[in-house]
Amino acid sequence: MDYRAILEGVQTGNMSIDQGLQALRKLGADELGYATLDHHRALRRGFPEVVYCEGKTPEQSAQILIRLAETGEGPVLGTRAGREVFDLVRRTHPSFEYEELSRMVFLRRGIGSPKGQVLVIAAGTSDLPVANEAVLTLELMGARVEQMIDVGVAGLHRLLGQLDRLYQARVLVVVAGMEGALPSVVAGLVDQPVIAVPTSVGYGSHLGGLTPLLSMLNSCSSGVGVVNIDNGFGAGYLAAMINRMGE
Amino acid sequence: MDYRAILEGVQTGNMSIDQGLQALRKLGADELGYATLDHHRALRRGFPEVVYCEGKTPEQSAQILIRLAETGEGPVLGTRAGREVFDLVRRTHPSFEYEELSRMVFLRRGIGSPKGQVLVIAAGTSDLPVANEAVLTLELMGARVEQMIDVGVAGLHRLLGQLDRLYQARVLVVVAGMEGALPSVVAGLVDQPVIAVPTSVGYGSHLGGLTPLLSMLNSCSSGVGVVNIDNGFGAGYLAAMINRMGE
Amino acid sequence: MDYRAILEGVQTGNMSIDQGLQALRKLGADELGYATLDHHRALRRGFPEVVYCEGKTPEQSAQILIRLAETGEGPVLGTRAGREVFDLVRRTHPSFEYEELSRMVFLRRGIGSPKGQVLVIAAGTSDLPVANEAVLTLELMGARVEQMIDVGVAGLHRLLGQLDRLYQARVLVVVAGMEGALPSVVAGLVDQPVIAVPTSVGYGSHLGGLTPLLSMLNSCSSGVGVVNIDNGFGAGYLAAMINRMGE
Amino acid sequence: MDYRAILEGVQTGNMSIDQGLQALRKLGADELGYATLDHHRALRRGFPEVVYCEGKTPEQSAQILIRLAETGEGPVLGTRAGREVFDLVRRTHPSFEYEELSRMVFLRRGIGSPKGQVLVIAAGTSDLPVANEAVLTLELMGARVEQMIDVGVAGLHRLLGQLDRLYQARVLVVVAGMEGALPSVVAGLVDQPVIAVPTSVGYGSHLGGLTPLLSMLNSCSSGVGVVNIDNGFGAGYLAAMINRMGE
Amino acid sequence: MDYRAILEGVQTGNMSIDQGLQALRKLGADELGYATLDHHRALRRGFPEVVYCEGKTPEQSAQILIRLAETGEGPVLGTRAGREVFDLVRRTHPSFEYEELSRMVFLRRGIGSPKGQVLVIAAGTSDLPVANEAVLTLELMGARVEQMIDVGVAGLHRLLGQLDRLYQARVLVVVAGMEGALPSVVAGLVDQPVIAVPTSVGYGSHLGGLTPLLSMLNSCSSGVGVVNIDNGFGAGYLAAMINRMGE
Amino acid sequence: MDYRAILEGVQTGNMSIDQGLQALRKLGADELGYATLDHHRALRRGFPEVVYCEGKTPEQSAQILIRLAETGEGPVLGTRAGREVFDLVRRTHPSFEYEELSRMVFLRRGIGSPKGQVLVIAAGTSDLPVANEAVLTLELMGARVEQMIDVGVAGLHRLLGQLDRLYQARVLVVVAGMEGALPSVVAGLVDQPVIAVPTSVGYGSHLGGLTPLLSMLNSCSSGVGVVNIDNGFGAGYLAAMINRMGE
Amino acid sequence: MDYRAILEGVQTGNMSIDQGLQALRKLGADELGYATLDHHRALRRGFPEVVYCEGKTPEQSAQILIRLAETGEGPVLGTRAGREVFDLVRRTHPSFEYEELSRMVFLRRGIGSPKGQVLVIAAGTSDLPVANEAVLTLELMGARVEQMIDVGVAGLHRLLGQLDRLYQARVLVVVAGMEGALPSVVAGLVDQPVIAVPTSVGYGSHLGGLTPLLSMLNSCSSGVGVVNIDNGFGAGYLAAMINRMGE
Amino acid sequence: MDYRAILEGVQTGNMSIDQGLQALRKLGADELGYATLDHHRALRRGFPEVVYCEGKTPEQSAQILIRLAETGEGPVLGTRAGREVFDLVRRTHPSFEYEELSRMVFLRRGIGSPKGQVLVIAAGTSDLPVANEAVLTLELMGARVEQMIDVGVAGLHRLLGQLDRLYQARVLVVVAGMEGALPSVVAGLVDQPVIAVPTSVGYGSHLGGLTPLLSMLNSCSSGVGVVNIDNGFGAGYLAAMINRMGE
Repeated sequence: MDYRAILEGVQTGNMSIDQGLQALRKLGADELGYATLDHHRALRRGFPEVVYCEGKTPEQSAQILIRLAETGEGPVLGTRAGREVFDLVRRTHPSFEYEELSRMVFLRRGIGSPKGQVLVIAAGTSDLPVANEAVLTLELMGARVEQMIDVGVAGLHRLLGQLDRLYQARVLVVVAGMEGALPSVVAGLVDQPVIAVPTSVGYGSHLGGLTPLLSMLNSCSSGVGVVNIDNGFGAGYLAAMINRMGE
Repeated sequence: MDYRAILEGVQTGNMSIDQGLQALRKLGADELGYATLDHHRALRRGFPEVVYCEGKTPEQSAQILIRLAETGEGPVLGTRAGREVFDLVRRTHPSFEYEELSRMVFLRRGIGSPKGQVLVIAAGTSDLPVANEAVLTLELMGARVEQMIDVGVAGLHRLLGQLDRLYQARVLVVVAGMEGALPSVVAGLVDQPVIAVPTSVGYGSHLGGLTPLLSMLNSCSSGVGVVNIDNGFGAGYLAAMINRMGE
Repeated sequence: MDYRAILEGVQTGNMSIDQGLQALRKLGADELGYATLDHHRALRRGFPEVVYCEGKTPEQSAQILIRLAETGEGPVLGTRAGREVFDLVRRTHPSFEYEELSRMVFLRRGIGSPKGQVLVIAAGTSDLPVANEAVLTLELMGARVEQMIDVGVAGLHRLLGQLDRLYQARVLVVVAGMEGALPSVVAGLVDQPVIAVPTSVGYGSHLGGLTPLLSMLNSCSSGVGVVNIDNGFGAGYLAAMINRMGE
Repeated sequence: MDYRAILEGVQTGNMSIDQGLQALRKLGADELGYATLDHHRALRRGFPEVVYCEGKTPEQSAQILIRLAETGEGPVLGTRAGREVFDLVRRTHPSFEYEELSRMVFLRRGIGSPKGQVLVIAAGTSDLPVANEAVLTLELMGARVEQMIDVGVAGLHRLLGQLDRLYQARVLVVVAGMEGALPSVVAGLVDQPVIAVPTSVGYGSHLGGLTPLLSMLNSCSSGVGVVNIDNGFGAGYLAAMINRMGE
Repeated sequence: MDYRAILEGVQTGNMSIDQGLQALRKLGADELGYATLDHHRALRRGFPEVVYCEGKTPEQSAQILIRLAETGEGPVLGTRAGREVFDLVRRTHPSFEYEELSRMVFLRRGIGSPKGQVLVIAAGTSDLPVANEAVLTLELMGARVEQMIDVGVAGLHRLLGQLDRLYQARVLVVVAGMEGALPSVVAGLVDQPVIAVPTSVGYGSHLGGLTPLLSMLNSCSSGVGVVNIDNGFGAGYLAAMINRMGE
Repeated sequence: MDYRAILEGVQTGNMSIDQGLQALRKLGADELGYATLDHHRALRRGFPEVVYCEGKTPEQSAQILIRLAETGEGPVLGTRAGREVFDLVRRTHPSFEYEELSRMVFLRRGIGSPKGQVLVIAAGTSDLPVANEAVLTLELMGARVEQMIDVGVAGLHRLLGQLDRLYQARVLVVVAGMEGALPSVVAGLVDQPVIAVPTSVGYGSHLGGLTPLLSMLNSCSSGVGVVNIDNGFGAGYLAAMINRMGE
Repeated sequence: MDYRAILEGVQTGNMSIDQGLQALRKLGADELGYATLDHHRALRRGFPEVVYCEGKTPEQSAQILIRLAETGEGPVLGTRAGREVFDLVRRTHPSFEYEELSRMVFLRRGIGSPKGQVLVIAAGTSDLPVANEAVLTLELMGARVEQMIDVGVAGLHRLLGQLDRLYQARVLVVVAGMEGALPSVVAGLVDQPVIAVPTSVGYGSHLGGLTPLLSMLNSCSSGVGVVNIDNGFGAGYLAAMINRMGE
Repeated sequence: MDYRAILEGVQTGNMSIDQGLQALRKLGADELGYATLDHHRALRRGFPEVVYCEGKTPEQSAQILIRLAETGEGPVLGTRAGREVFDLVRRTHPSFEYEELSRMVFLRRGIGSPKGQVLVIAAGTSDLPVANEAVLTLELMGARVEQMIDVGVAGLHRLLGQLDRLYQARVLVVVAGMEGALPSVVAGLVDQPVIAVPTSVGYGSHLGGLTPLLSMLNSCSSGVGVVNIDNGFGAGYLAAMINRMGE
């Protein structure tokens, strides 16, 4: 049950004022003992709360996801979720899906037809898990998404042969590990916003992704916003917000 | 000469196999020539060419700015410019202006009436130079801009008392030094994109701005894109791109 | 046997001067070969020595805990203890307890009724293990403790809806990972001391907790003291000391 | 307007569903308005408003200090202020004072007789500027303060000869550069809270104070809270809060 | 099928222009869905694409290697490959080989007789895996290679007793962990280019190889180029390029 | 005295066992005397003796340069030299020259006609001082040098329009600050060795050049050797060595 | 067979000059293919080569140790050795011993009666593995050694109660993790050289031992030399050298 | 009052249990009074009191130096002293001297004839200030000192040609910037203790001396103790302690 449903319930008389207040209070902060769910967020931010499953027990993660599925009407999303979270969730809710590479548990619901156009570019095959996280997030937030894989700067013609696809996107998410040069090159070619995602793919002085992160923050091309290492979700979320503006 | 021409040359015997190989090799790069088109495209868009003056001699900076003023018709912008650059430029072009705090030299020209709405928030008074850089960049790129100053998280009520202004912006630029918590708090309150700019304001373990930079990259709120420390220009540029999408 | 018991033994004549000296010497530094127990600490610092079990063999940890249980009369506490330490200890001392999340082995003994009021706040569910360590330490040191879980800055209303609970505490322990903004926000709302505990919850540029640590050290709110990453014990210890001052 | 009013508006038809949703959205934030009360509460407490002058122009700093002096009745304090700030301020307000070493501008006013007992310890003579910042902050916040200078661990007897002074304080501020060992040693000797302040005194691998900062965070003694490098003000503020609890 | 074959097919009429175009397009970027093979590289850079297997599933790695083996005529090389990659590859292509220490999967094919002379020096036995990676890369790229093992600076006479071997190489690859002093010493003895490879062999403040990396970048001897930590492949590749110039 | 002589001395009784041991001990080091020969060899090669002037007094620097000019016959080179070094040197030796940007003092002498072809590429105008250092070093070491300036990846077409110049060089030196992406892009286009030089041009998270340094070390293109930040001299020296191999 | 034996063989005629030369050559650098043994070291440095077993296969480590045992007459030592190395070695040489905590394989042979006096102090029980490594190294190098365990600065009286033991040592090795304050305190109490060994015992901002390492390098007490993190062997070696000077 | 007296007081009833507990508590600290003896001991040893002048005002430094000169009879030493300190001191005490490069103010007095032999080696001319600091410290502490300058590893023969001088020293101080390889090479050649001093000479990734510091800590040669960057005084002090042991 969400905000609109409560108002409609009160409007139609199916719900008393006191029942409405009770329901509203629960939506604002739903305490599970180990978590305080922020159902208000969907209203405030236009997308429901997302569950970051790392550092939670599988049981905690699963219970929060189920609670979100039962109290809302839109999509539900859990990131960095082990398969055991999925296994727990789908016992109760068989409509949940799981994507192996990006380790996401999600429920496609109430999304509507995809809007706008976002292009998610991955420099290499090893960046796929992070790129997938961005793609799925975008889809759940209602964006039309395309992907372009393995077009790193070591072989520029792979990218340059597909310039039209770059021009057609409203916003681009560029995922890269190693030296993280791809967002700089892409941003130099287009005049749309570029969201850069460094990945932890590399070794030695790669420093777990700090090298491409720093590289992207120092891009000599303008128009680049950076998110945390491996944060495909964050990039997808931000890109979806921007993509929505083009409506 | 394109791929077909090469093949036809070889088929007809006008070109030997080795000549064909040589031509193919060059094509792999000429193909890249697409980028030139993009450059022309960028020129047509009315966006300013921007000169980063740090590390250039004042004479070099001034000459480049004058050249841009004489060959183009839109605004001209030089960042991190000492006053001596301004002094050199205005001898020839008295229409140039200078903003002391942000050290920008610029020519307001061909901008048109401001569009959309961008809110630039500065956590403290000391963050003003960077915030000003963002504001001026936005104005030169055609955006309507508002500012909100000194609303850091140590006194939340200053921010919360102006929520309407937050809701009215298409995109928000949030500038903060110290622990850099403000973008997280702001992004938790709105559903528009937030561009976070860490500043080098602080001391000790502030590490010249690395602390708020890291803080912003790890924001627990979604919808935040980060730019380099003190990079008000970059934030303004990205925000202007996004703001334009709302047209 | 503790200091008071020795003095009473000598006073009543149950113990000769030389027996007393011998007992005192043993209390001052009880050598186990691989450890020198500091029984004097309870007298000097008001709380017995705490055993940091990481880097010790389970046998070493267990023997030290048992020795402390047998020679003192107050509570006994082992931190970062694997379950095998607990298994070894409770064979001899079945009164010992174990808390899974924080990995603490402890003996509630001679604590008295809880005094004062300390509030332990955790930004997210994933910060619970560290928050639990603080809570248990506080309880063993005689403080009355309350908890508030999952009230991170991404949804400020969860925190602001419970301001009264903030005002009622003598001292607050605030545990947060990610960008570590919560202590700054809390300290801006109250006028009691805030002990900030960064956690290693996060990824990428989170740097194992260095990011929230740096963030907390650079808080723009005054009245914040910081302890090491994941150091719930240290925060609880310091908070208990401060809480005790209100008597 | 509160939740009940919105529900009643919708029930009675005075408000459409969409108007209700809009009002609810705002309410989630207005709820945050509690913070304002807290602010007023802080104002009533007689704590100084503190101006961090670094990064502000002398004129900005002076104007803010003068405004605070004219609108309040308690003490006023500006930190990291150059002498030119003081020169500007005392033209209007000759009662302001200046402390050279710590670069503080301040107005002693409405403080009352000093309460409690705080001991500020400096490991070496070079740590005096930071220690002075702590002392002055404490005095302006109403605490009775004592100092102990140049008692670093290279000559332990200097500290151990004055143990009584350590025992008499309610809380201790320990300022140290170099390896920052002094807070660990002090905290091992007392059972009061210790606030540790690393200073930027040292060279080479001292890393501008990061070395003693890390050292203090990893203290093997319990009961230590750490503030930022050279942050004598922050340490004094926190110590004053704790000292006040003993009333 | 490679470029020459296509041109010959068109020249002889075995292939139409359109078939040729189709084949060329495929060669330029062979999309596998999760990877875009860069067959053009062998033409452009003189050595076929190398597959970095870390971060790819064994199946992905194996399929790319097989595809490269089937479409090209030169050597094929996969680095950082687990044995399971090798097991998958050799089912189809039994000519592939595997080197355990350096974890390389490769196909020796179309290499010709070794040319020039490259000396690969390893400071210690523990540096062998990285040195082997360099040696194999060099061999597959057509270079004659010699090795010198365990000649670190703690026993200089081991190196100095073999100076003639140093003088005979066209280029030297020097692999070292610990403090990474060996390349400086070697470069001081010869007048040929030295490629320095830091390894992750060491502990404590070795920082996973950052220490020898920094050491090599700051060599007081001229003529040293540095590659990433443990990057034996990169060193071998660069050395092979330089060695080829001596022809 | 060599091994055989020692053994014969002992055999004949001309030497006692202990005298033999003493002689053997020394021999282990005298063996190292080979290095001296190498030194003479280097002197014969016509390479300049280079004086690093930073950290030396101007008088020291000038005297060493003059001594080299008087005792040798080839070129002489001083790097990082203030103008005062030049002023001191040319009093005695008016043939010395000075290059302002790179701060080099040098004597062109005995160089012969330039050989081979080296291309020095600078990403931006601000990288000129470092590029100039490389160019001058190359010229003094006998190489033919070309330059390409301001072809950073933010406008790829500037680079791609001059591919022929890239192909004609035997070795390329690529100088870049900011994110340091240019060497990766260049190395992906050519099959010659690339020497990458990071510069300290940038700000904020640029970390004084560490960001492009790390970026270049993690290049996804093969064939890149890296030198220290701002080390134009080192890059020129290494490139000259490689260029010479093509003779 | 060692140097003296060769000389005696030649002196007595049991060995020809050529046999002697052959034996000497072997001693100077004994090539095993994957290692170049430096038998010369015992002569040059007064203690035979030590085998660092990390990063070598157990077989390699065992073979090198056995070779050293067979060709020399003094003690043999392998550090960081897994038990499997010991198992392999003792099949051939049952006199080898193994110490579990420090993971050392060694052969006590030809050591003579212990000389001088070295005190090895460990701050905590968790520092024992590193302290043991120092103790065993010292014993094998002929020093008389004493230990003092668990006397960290959190309970100073444990250390101060044993000052006489500190004064009796010629040189002290002080091992500490956490904040690493103990060497500073000890060096302030004695006038003998102190060798400080940081350990990786700690968590959070302890940074794997970097914190105590930095702390020790910045000691405010003079007379402290520092070795790498966990490098008990290096500390023992250096202390043995110094201890030997007192003869 | 000692333990026995307390027990007797309690036994005889002259002291209550609570008075006894209070007395015992104080004793735990008074016991620490032993340290005072150590201080007197140090004074008797004729070692200079050393004043670290950085961070003190010239007046403070001068006054402390004068006080030491007037109350003691041995040498007096001030490090990191500006010339103005010297100017202030010599007004009262014309016997003080000043060394420009190392910025030391000192009084040679009561030193006696130099003893033992210490060799101070500097890798380059730029390392002289730090080497001088070590030399002067050694001289003031009574050691005979020799110097060897500019013998870096880029030209090994310079070092190897003077091996006898290395063998004659009791202890060696090796000062090096850049990559800091020299101590490793020297320690591999001798069997005496080596004190390694990294300097801040270098640029770029030299990190203000952290690179040679890390390099020296990871030396593959045994027998090396490291002091802080540029800490010539600390190295000299430690070397003097060791040198004295050879008496």
